Amino acid sequence: MQQTRLDTGRIRAARRVIDPVFLGTPLYRCEALEPGLGCAVSIKLETANPVRSFKGRGTEVVASLLAEHGPRAVVCASAGNLGQALAWSGRGRGLDVTVVASRFATTAKLDRIRALGAGLELVDGDHELARERAAAIARYDGIRLVEDSLDLETCEGAATIGLELVEAREGANPGAQAKRADLTDQADQADQAQLAEQAQLPVPAPPFDAVLIALGGGALATGVGHVLKALAPGVEVICVQPLGAPALTRSWHERRVVTTDSTDTIADGVAGRCPIPAVLDDLLLVADDAVLVQEASIIAGMRMLLDHAGLVVEPSAALGIAAILEDRDRFAGRHVVTVVCGSNVDGDAYRRWVGAVALPHSV
Amino acid sequence: MQQTRLDTGRIRAARRVIDPVFLGTPLYRCEALEPGLGCAVSIKLETANPVRSFKGRGTEVVASLLAEHGPRAVVCASAGNLGQALAWSGRGRGLDVTVVASRFATTAKLDRIRALGAGLELVDGDHELARERAAAIARYDGIRLVEDSLDLETCEGAATIGLELVEAREGANPGAQAKRADLTDQADQADQAQLAEQAQLPVPAPPFDAVLIALGGGALATGVGHVLKALAPGVEVICVQPLGAPALTRSWHERRVVTTDSTDTIADGVAGRCPIPAVLDDLLLVADDAVLVQEASIIAGMRMLLDHAGLVVEPSAALGIAAILEDRDRFAGRHVVTVVCGSNVDGDAYRRWVGAVALPHSV
Repeated sequence: MQQTRLDTGRIRAARRVIDPVFLGTPLYRCEALEPGLGCAVSIKLETANPVRSFKGRGTEVVASLLAEHGPRAVVCASAGNLGQALAWSGRGRGLDVTVVASRFATTAKLDRIRALGAGLELVDGDHELARERAAAIARYDGIRLVEDSLDLETCEGAATIGLELVEAREGANPGAQAKRADLTDQADQADQAQLAEQAQLPVPAPPFDAVLIALGGGALATGVGHVLKALAPGVEVICVQPLGAPALTRSWHERRVVTTDSTDTIADGVAGRCPIPAVLDDLLLVADDAVLVQEASIIAGMRMLLDHAGLVVEPSAALGIAAILEDRDRFAGRHVVTVVCGSNVDGDAYRRWVGAVALPHSV
Repeated sequence: MQQTRLDTGRIRAARRVIDPVFLGTPLYRCEALEPGLGCAVSIKLETANPVRSFKGRGTEVVASLLAEHGPRAVVCASAGNLGQALAWSGRGRGLDVTVVASRFATTAKLDRIRALGAGLELVDGDHELARERAAAIARYDGIRLVEDSLDLETCEGAATIGLELVEAREGANPGAQAKRADLTDQADQADQAQLAEQAQLPVPAPPFDAVLIALGGGALATGVGHVLKALAPGVEVICVQPLGAPALTRSWHERRVVTTDSTDTIADGVAGRCPIPAVLDDLLLVADDAVLVQEASIIAGMRMLLDHAGLVVEPSAALGIAAILEDRDRFAGRHVVTVVCGSNVDGDAYRRWVGAVALPHSV
């Protein structure tokens, strides 16, 4: 493929500077979700860490470089998760972290940013205004601006998820592999399904062939996408964005930057209006598709993850399930990985979204 | 210490036969919980896997041994999690799995056992009756009986959690360690706190000094306890059981088997009445304490884990938090690990337990 800005060697190196608490996250098949989705589904869980999102992977790279030979002060704009992660990574390395956020940002995220000791400045506008303000602070104060998705550390940190996916796929499911080898001793592969049936075994799910990635600024999608295209090019890379915040998806389809005047989605983590040209260029090289989903599907996805996987997730983390729900035929019979990228939610809002239904106990 | 039935070498070997999907589970500090608990708290999360509990570690050892050179049919009694895990492990290896459970068991657990293809027999009584019935089936049918906590595979599989805890403690928190090393270059350790304060850094949490373990049949407690006492003897091993199912805790305190006539707790996973003598002997060697907690504290623990950690857990998995809530002075200022051992809950019951409160968004 053509070269993105990312580098697989640097991504491998990034793993050595990221606190292990963010690495080697769970990847597991969740069969209880499958009857409702019509395909094999594996979850890559990025919420079981001190900041409850994947963003720590990128901020660890940023902060370790700064701690080594950079300014000790840093500012970023954030919908909440990047700011929380940068606060965490910066605190451990003695950096002075300022986060600029919209005053409409998720309260739980803002509270955690403060609790982690970062300076927090709120702007009376949306995330794009916060980006402008952060850039202005960096200029005036002469401190480092961390720009999510534009700064390669944020993409290459996120890209370490891709390395873990590829490695798991290569060494996938040793038990199932041994079983398959066992069956192969007795018959050729065409008979495997029949043999499995005779043995009352389910046919093991094949290695995953698609990865669903929440699309916001693009760090996660270009990062994971770069690694998959470099190391497992047969895997389909599908980006998912809310219909109410479609700027980067539209840009991808039109192959030019398309901005929008506003956003209207509960998925606060991916609600941008102004795609970054360099990020779009990378995304055009690594994404096989970019799709938009409705708010009702996002909520249905959150409910399914709660009811059948026992996972509390923020709306952005349900985009993958939403995409399956909206296009079952596309995924029927396939094995899909969805990256559950964050779980920072406001309690009241979460209860409103998922609370209307009982939590059924069976599939 | 005196010898338990467990063997550290075998526990290390167990890791090689357990499907990696159950290994290397997240261990992370959860600061959002800490203001409410008064101590540093780390979570060892055993729910992000295909069966949503730690039991897969043990059943993988059982099933791999059987697949190698044992009978192909196996039966166990289970409150639900062992059965689900044995069904999963057995299915992947072509074993014929029967699970005996109380008809009062958690419906979500029974549904998943069926969905995984195991035979399920319900008895009209509690878990102890299920144990009797499973033993009878094994005798009549000449098949392998898996006895949770008595069979060493179940203890030594669970014990691999202990290996991970010890390894994490030894290599704890590289970022914080580097920082500490940095500070040590400038001053001796006594000045670290002051330096950290000057740098506006929190003092890094010291390595954990206590592990809270749900106590049911004893496999988890004797397993993790064995490894900790062997490899990190300074760590306090504290078992936690509900006041409504106190048999093994009372037995530990009286140093003899004490049975009870009934149980009365929502923590279905740990509701036994008849401790196994050999397990008690091991527990006496590895546990520093065994405490009982009230139902209200278990529910409060479940709510805290939901509100501040974003984790849906079953009651047994909240026992550790309940223990801290009931004895804050004991843990004040310390660093405690709690093993979050399962998340299989019935939706309606869970909503009843946690639903009475809003999910606050801040600590």
